[in-house]
Amino acid sequence: MSAAELKDMLGRVRLTPVEKAKSILLTGLQDVVIPSERCPLPAALDRVRSADSSAPEDLPTHPRSTMDGFAVRAADTFGASSTTPCYLEIAGNVAMGQVPEGNVTQGKCHRIATGGLLPQGSDAVVMFEHTIPVDDKMIEVVKSVGVGTSLIARGEDIEKGCPALLRGQLLRPQDLGLLAGLGITELEVYKQPRVAILSTGDEIVPWSNSPPPGKIRDINGIVLAGLCERLGAKVIDYGIVSDSEDVFYNTLEQATAENNIVLFSGGSSVGMRDLGEQVIEKLGNPGILVHGVALRPGKPIIIGLSQQTAIFGLPGHPVSAMVCFELFVTPALEKLAGKMDTSQFSSPTIQAIVDRNINSAAGRLDLVRVQLQERGNDLPLAIPVLGKSGAISTLSRAHGYFFIDEPSQGVTKDTPVQIHLLS
Amino acid sequence: MSAAELKDMLGRVRLTPVEKAKSILLTGLQDVVIPSERCPLPAALDRVRSADSSAPEDLPTHPRSTMDGFAVRAADTFGASSTTPCYLEIAGNVAMGQVPEGNVTQGKCHRIATGGLLPQGSDAVVMFEHTIPVDDKMIEVVKSVGVGTSLIARGEDIEKGCPALLRGQLLRPQDLGLLAGLGITELEVYKQPRVAILSTGDEIVPWSNSPPPGKIRDINGIVLAGLCERLGAKVIDYGIVSDSEDVFYNTLEQATAENNIVLFSGGSSVGMRDLGEQVIEKLGNPGILVHGVALRPGKPIIIGLSQQTAIFGLPGHPVSAMVCFELFVTPALEKLAGKMDTSQFSSPTIQAIVDRNINSAAGRLDLVRVQLQERGNDLPLAIPVLGKSGAISTLSRAHGYFFIDEPSQGVTKDTPVQIHLLS
Repeated sequence: MSAAELKDMLGRVRLTPVEKAKSILLTGLQDVVIPSERCPLPAALDRVRSADSSAPEDLPTHPRSTMDGFAVRAADTFGASSTTPCYLEIAGNVAMGQVPEGNVTQGKCHRIATGGLLPQGSDAVVMFEHTIPVDDKMIEVVKSVGVGTSLIARGEDIEKGCPALLRGQLLRPQDLGLLAGLGITELEVYKQPRVAILSTGDEIVPWSNSPPPGKIRDINGIVLAGLCERLGAKVIDYGIVSDSEDVFYNTLEQATAENNIVLFSGGSSVGMRDLGEQVIEKLGNPGILVHGVALRPGKPIIIGLSQQTAIFGLPGHPVSAMVCFELFVTPALEKLAGKMDTSQFSSPTIQAIVDRNINSAAGRLDLVRVQLQERGNDLPLAIPVLGKSGAISTLSRAHGYFFIDEPSQGVTKDTPVQIHLLS
Repeated sequence: MSAAELKDMLGRVRLTPVEKAKSILLTGLQDVVIPSERCPLPAALDRVRSADSSAPEDLPTHPRSTMDGFAVRAADTFGASSTTPCYLEIAGNVAMGQVPEGNVTQGKCHRIATGGLLPQGSDAVVMFEHTIPVDDKMIEVVKSVGVGTSLIARGEDIEKGCPALLRGQLLRPQDLGLLAGLGITELEVYKQPRVAILSTGDEIVPWSNSPPPGKIRDINGIVLAGLCERLGAKVIDYGIVSDSEDVFYNTLEQATAENNIVLFSGGSSVGMRDLGEQVIEKLGNPGILVHGVALRPGKPIIIGLSQQTAIFGLPGHPVSAMVCFELFVTPALEKLAGKMDTSQFSSPTIQAIVDRNINSAAGRLDLVRVQLQERGNDLPLAIPVLGKSGAISTLSRAHGYFFIDEPSQGVTKDTPVQIHLLS
């Protein structure tokens, strides 16, 4: 698509609806090949599985008791009750962590603790609570048990050959637990996406510097890096890049070649936006995908693709840049991390009541930052954080945000809204 | 409280309701002193602020344009419209990143881009879109502007001396952005809590080993470590500890002295539970806080406190251990990380429809693991993951969970439930 096609007959930029822009972006990324690498199990936390895996063995490998009691033959207890108990001889003790000695034969039982291996011949466990000791060698069983009672059978957790984890699954603590239980000590995971971060604009100095008059500290670089790190990406800092076309083009070309995602931000002026547009077009293959979305804040975002690298020209205002990150960079990063079904479930929210009327232009998605005020048993109050999109403090004061959808012209006081927490 | 007082007249353990157990635990931790340390800004991501901080300077330090246009004296534009434009002479250009040359005087304006520093004498910006060029030296302004239009004033983001971040606040990417904008390059944060993890039981071998018959691989250790790491804790692995009272007591004593939280798990047998109870009582100061909660899975948890260290005897079954972690260890860890208001807002959920009747005993909190099935525009379906609490695969298959509250005897098919995602 050429830059000209993205404008209407009056030369105004055509704004793409947010969902359409996201869909164009993810379609553009659908054929990207994500490399994988081997990783020891403990380091695989929060990485993404790059191949389906099945259980190499039964878990557990042997039946184990889930209660303290006696390993029995279930048939020996049939009909047992407190009025008509059955009597079993204690013929053995299962030592924890040991292979049980001897078999359980008719009319006999072995003492067993939770976690103990079931002796040969037994097929159920009677809990201590359902027995009465007669003497050292004999118990009364006052409740009958069926086959399999109070034990976990061989392969009951997972059977050998059954799917354990699917390709594209994020490895959570409990997933590592399953792999540990199966004796899988290392595994294939997708490589972490590499994200290049550039700040642009001759007015920007590194945040660690004291800016001379006329210049300001870079805010977007550290915010974007933090957002990327939280999503498990590797961040490569390309620093502050001059507005000069040659310098900017060369840096962007290198960053695009070396990374999976390139984020540049800083220029909110028309000149800077035009420059961003030009260099993405010049990189080509295919170049610009989306220029301007029907979103506030965040309208002037540029989304591009060059070979297999997604390029985002984020607005310079910190609030706009972070909103664009949430809506566009996050799904792209999850896609390039190899996560399946990134939009499978809606993101979790909490309900709150908006404390005033808020207007919105129809045809545009509005993101409203809010502070929440707890009110005991009532739903919390959502208090909009007002302030310009250049004011980073409004994001730092916000507990979360809600959306006013495109068709809506606003929300009225006392309406319940779904809050996405910024936690 | 002695162990005897925790039992009823028939010698049964009295189960503490979940909310009461949590409240006893957090009350026990309320006077714990959390040390702090200095940390460079980029390393402060996801750490917790240990002191209030206020802005050391105005942000921005000078008024800046938020639009491309002309810096003007607002008074010069009063009454301007497309039918009665006013005329202003272009007396200068604000170069990006430079201190503007000259003042804006009556009837004059300076060309300015977004982010440019406002020249002396100007108090508003007229957007390009609201001007018509007459020649190189003169514009028509077709819309009047008020003082402050299209600019961010000195201190408008945050004023010098105003509170920037509060003690107990988790430092999110946007909070680092605010600190960066204010030139704060290092800051005081709470030290990360240290968590000791021990697995107990003579039947347990490290997960990296091949277990001989009768033994099983340790699952809880790696799951608990992952859960702690995700919450920003430092995990210290004390390995697998023998059931022998002396060895266990000595290891627990050392772990308690060296850490803020001690987690031991593995023994689900009565003997092992009694041992856990004995050693926590022996450590004392004060010893056991809670023994057994009205929760399924997770009933046999032991919660103790010794000096300033919280001790959790978690059930050996992996599902029970993780549930107890979510409900009890997480709030304790957040408290010991220095986070304020950990329970300020309810945790975000998504709504789903339960696909079958599920029974629950009244007087007990039930946690039901579920898989979710997306259904287009309808709410997703919540399908309970059935399986014993010893089966780690049930947690790996689960997308989330919901609660059946103490007074309830179950939920019926087609009821909407609030799902906490296990993401």
